[in-house]
Amino acid sequence: MFEGATTGTPISLMIENVDQRSKDYSEVAKAYRPGHADYAYDAKYGFRDYRGGGRSSARETAARVAAGAVARLVIPEVAVLAWVSEIGGDAIEPANFDANQIGNNPFFCPDPVAAARWEKLVDEARLAGSSVGAVVECVAQGVPAGWGAPIYGKLDADLAAAMIGINAVKGVEIGDGFAAARLSGEQNADPMRPGPGMPVFTANHAGGIAGGISTGQPVKVRVAFKPTSSILTPVETIDRDGQAAEIRTKGRHDPCVGIRGVPVVEAMMALVLADHKLLHRGQCG
Amino acid sequence: MFEGATTGTPISLMIENVDQRSKDYSEVAKAYRPGHADYAYDAKYGFRDYRGGGRSSARETAARVAAGAVARLVIPEVAVLAWVSEIGGDAIEPANFDANQIGNNPFFCPDPVAAARWEKLVDEARLAGSSVGAVVECVAQGVPAGWGAPIYGKLDADLAAAMIGINAVKGVEIGDGFAAARLSGEQNADPMRPGPGMPVFTANHAGGIAGGISTGQPVKVRVAFKPTSSILTPVETIDRDGQAAEIRTKGRHDPCVGIRGVPVVEAMMALVLADHKLLHRGQCG
Amino acid sequence: MFEGATTGTPISLMIENVDQRSKDYSEVAKAYRPGHADYAYDAKYGFRDYRGGGRSSARETAARVAAGAVARLVIPEVAVLAWVSEIGGDAIEPANFDANQIGNNPFFCPDPVAAARWEKLVDEARLAGSSVGAVVECVAQGVPAGWGAPIYGKLDADLAAAMIGINAVKGVEIGDGFAAARLSGEQNADPMRPGPGMPVFTANHAGGIAGGISTGQPVKVRVAFKPTSSILTPVETIDRDGQAAEIRTKGRHDPCVGIRGVPVVEAMMALVLADHKLLHRGQCG
Amino acid sequence: MFEGATTGTPISLMIENVDQRSKDYSEVAKAYRPGHADYAYDAKYGFRDYRGGGRSSARETAARVAAGAVARLVIPEVAVLAWVSEIGGDAIEPANFDANQIGNNPFFCPDPVAAARWEKLVDEARLAGSSVGAVVECVAQGVPAGWGAPIYGKLDADLAAAMIGINAVKGVEIGDGFAAARLSGEQNADPMRPGPGMPVFTANHAGGIAGGISTGQPVKVRVAFKPTSSILTPVETIDRDGQAAEIRTKGRHDPCVGIRGVPVVEAMMALVLADHKLLHRGQCG
Repeated sequence: MFEGATTGTPISLMIENVDQRSKDYSEVAKAYRPGHADYAYDAKYGFRDYRGGGRSSARETAARVAAGAVARLVIPEVAVLAWVSEIGGDAIEPANFDANQIGNNPFFCPDPVAAARWEKLVDEARLAGSSVGAVVECVAQGVPAGWGAPIYGKLDADLAAAMIGINAVKGVEIGDGFAAARLSGEQNADPMRPGPGMPVFTANHAGGIAGGISTGQPVKVRVAFKPTSSILTPVETIDRDGQAAEIRTKGRHDPCVGIRGVPVVEAMMALVLADHKLLHRGQCG
Repeated sequence: MFEGATTGTPISLMIENVDQRSKDYSEVAKAYRPGHADYAYDAKYGFRDYRGGGRSSARETAARVAAGAVARLVIPEVAVLAWVSEIGGDAIEPANFDANQIGNNPFFCPDPVAAARWEKLVDEARLAGSSVGAVVECVAQGVPAGWGAPIYGKLDADLAAAMIGINAVKGVEIGDGFAAARLSGEQNADPMRPGPGMPVFTANHAGGIAGGISTGQPVKVRVAFKPTSSILTPVETIDRDGQAAEIRTKGRHDPCVGIRGVPVVEAMMALVLADHKLLHRGQCG
Repeated sequence: MFEGATTGTPISLMIENVDQRSKDYSEVAKAYRPGHADYAYDAKYGFRDYRGGGRSSARETAARVAAGAVARLVIPEVAVLAWVSEIGGDAIEPANFDANQIGNNPFFCPDPVAAARWEKLVDEARLAGSSVGAVVECVAQGVPAGWGAPIYGKLDADLAAAMIGINAVKGVEIGDGFAAARLSGEQNADPMRPGPGMPVFTANHAGGIAGGISTGQPVKVRVAFKPTSSILTPVETIDRDGQAAEIRTKGRHDPCVGIRGVPVVEAMMALVLADHKLLHRGQCG
Repeated sequence: MFEGATTGTPISLMIENVDQRSKDYSEVAKAYRPGHADYAYDAKYGFRDYRGGGRSSARETAARVAAGAVARLVIPEVAVLAWVSEIGGDAIEPANFDANQIGNNPFFCPDPVAAARWEKLVDEARLAGSSVGAVVECVAQGVPAGWGAPIYGKLDADLAAAMIGINAVKGVEIGDGFAAARLSGEQNADPMRPGPGMPVFTANHAGGIAGGISTGQPVKVRVAFKPTSSILTPVETIDRDGQAAEIRTKGRHDPCVGIRGVPVVEAMMALVLADHKLLHRGQCG
């Protein structure tokens, strides 16, 4: 920043980890934690940094959220909003959806009834040393038609990569996603009617993207987070010497990483859209 | 090719379209087909090639299949197999899974009982001028632990982009995908036991990838194809002048594009894995 | 092309080699040609395609010239012109420079007096089975200030890579190049005066690029081509078994490849500028 | 670093500028400095950070030198050495070349006789508030045959981009460079004789690269640095409002930036070679 403006230089963000605990890593150091990248990372690099997962730690997502805040400034015409729509298999009631509720509970839940149920559900998982998964939904309003590309650089492909690349994510859907595979062609159509400047769509099964290019409808994704891999129940594993071991992950226990995923999903949406806005401008002026 | 070997030059593949029909595009030329890229493409480029979708046509996937055949030569240690696991919401019975059946029916179906049901289901859709969606599954056996990377170039992110980038695909899952969001941490663990040279995993909920890196287990993806957008029922739409119109897509009718997606999914799996094999060799020797 | 316009699909160009001669490659097949990529290519790939150099052949530059013609359509505001300024150490007289002469002789020479000398010089090299080098200069008029970037994607760095990447090129200069290293800071300054819309520069030692970004002055490069490596005088070499050999290159003899480099240099200039025009539009709107 | 080894995470280097002077930038702030990127940068971004050049400052090369030190660890088989071979048009005597002298004088000069002359020459420039250019040469010993590629990713093209991308560089040569354009084909040949494991070349006009691929000979580049643009003599220029102005650059005066370029040239050589070593391993195993 200089004289109130960015200077054209890359924006550098540095987040210092001020919440490290000098706790005992001896348990984790002894053996690979199933569900974590421990074994795969060591198989790749022949190296293991067992201090909280090292480079594979979800702490890295803090940088994504910070960068996403910058990306939003690049796309002021777009409003990005995410929420949790399901925890441990318990989904919100679409009729109860109220965007104003999302910030009113610790679960980013737009359905106050579901939020009350989740409080119990997540507490039980915590007390049991167990964990639960979650589904996060994200909508970007205001994306104009035309961002993306028909083969290389498809908007939906870049969004899918961005979302699956978030730690603990195992699935992604654009628009209706897997549910679209259960619709007929008639049900799945997004008919168009004349509108002012752009068509009015009477449905949005496509999630705002057709053929890799935005249609002008809201861009919608759904993202599946697996349950936290760190649990207090001992799990069979092996150590670095290949010997049988058991491991249980003590320390701070987070029973549902999906909840923390909400700002990360928003950030990745903003980052991908900001990229595509600039790419589109380069391509089409 | 020269003296029985590749020469180090890029391999060029050219597929001539010998099955064009000099049919009447006048209907399609008049208005945008909902569910296709017609409107979005025109919004981006200010141009519309209505001859079968132009660059947005799924004809392009023929090139992917051809390239995938070359990619398989780069990864002889890996066996890639895909099949249809669900059509129009009707899924195979896992207990009936028989890989040998996949080539014995026109649906790439590993469950002969389901194949019989699908024959009727797809025929009915065809006769009604309607269409149905499908889910394709793909497994790659023999991928060693260590391909991929922990943040940039994650194996699962690249697979997700490759799969969502296939025409008509709206969702992708790695391993258990959305089902993992409904499991507890204990259920979702992939415990390890000592094995010869590498661990024996007693489950594979992760689909062979942890923290963006292959674990040595089979790499598993599930891919959702929407129902074919071209249907004979007229759908509301607009023309290039923004006026109200109706459109129905005549000509060759393909009631389930997901079936044709099977070799494309296999090809994209092979292409991504071949890339990552070479990247891993560059990274880790 | 469709209805008189490009369709948004990548433009594919294919040039069939219709001038192959079924001549005897047995001499070339026996041993590596010094000065060619024969040995280095085989050292890399463990493979040798001796038919005219294979992938390392300058035939490849035909594709660059064709692509450059397309690139020029992207930058109609820019006029690109190249010429030969020196052959075999014999340079043009700057005072004789006449752009209209460039197309009037087989040497792309803007100085008719030098062209007459070169005719003799090149003929002698041809008759002796020898070869001579050349320097090609290229100017792009009409490039606006602002293309390029200060660190990554510098315009001069991309031009340098594009030019050195042409077969037989061994040196590149932006503006005064090596001569600038012999000037004082006062001599090398490009002073500015007020002008209509943009400054008037009273000199252009910088060749139109400062800090990786175009200044609005003509972009100037000089490119050194080595003498053709294929000569009729036998040269010491080794064969694939590492044994001593001698080689002389028969067949069509081209005593000065630099002359053929003129359209290639123009093409590479146009390709780099077209890229940077689009990048700049993406970056700065 | 963890337990004595890198952890597989990207290596982050941060250099704090502890030598800023709270001097008066008012002179520089008023007008564009000719020869600097001031005008071009402002033309691109509509923004000017006049504090020492901002992003266009050669301070940035400190990061390159630091990164080059890491790159050298990736290529322990290669020895990279650079020196100044010419200042203000006064060249070293090749017969006097002594690598051991390079560190014995402030000019990285391998010829002690030239070093003595340069001391006077540079001092005179400093006292006059003037500046002089320089030529830097760099040799990398130990690069095996096979790094690079025949068309995309040519080793010489990447080196050229890396060198021209250094602040103040206006020309680059591979091997004999522009001098090769004055040789005959016979003179420029690099004959090969049988040698142990690899050929013995009897000359190295090519600078160790043929067809974009290393030959196993030393990789040689020459780099031209223009004279420092900041001089004490007033130069005609314009201010941001397009009005006529004069500027002279006070403060620390560096009469020959080329001398400081030596470690930067070495670093860029090491960075490009380290990249190509890894690329080659990915390509050819």
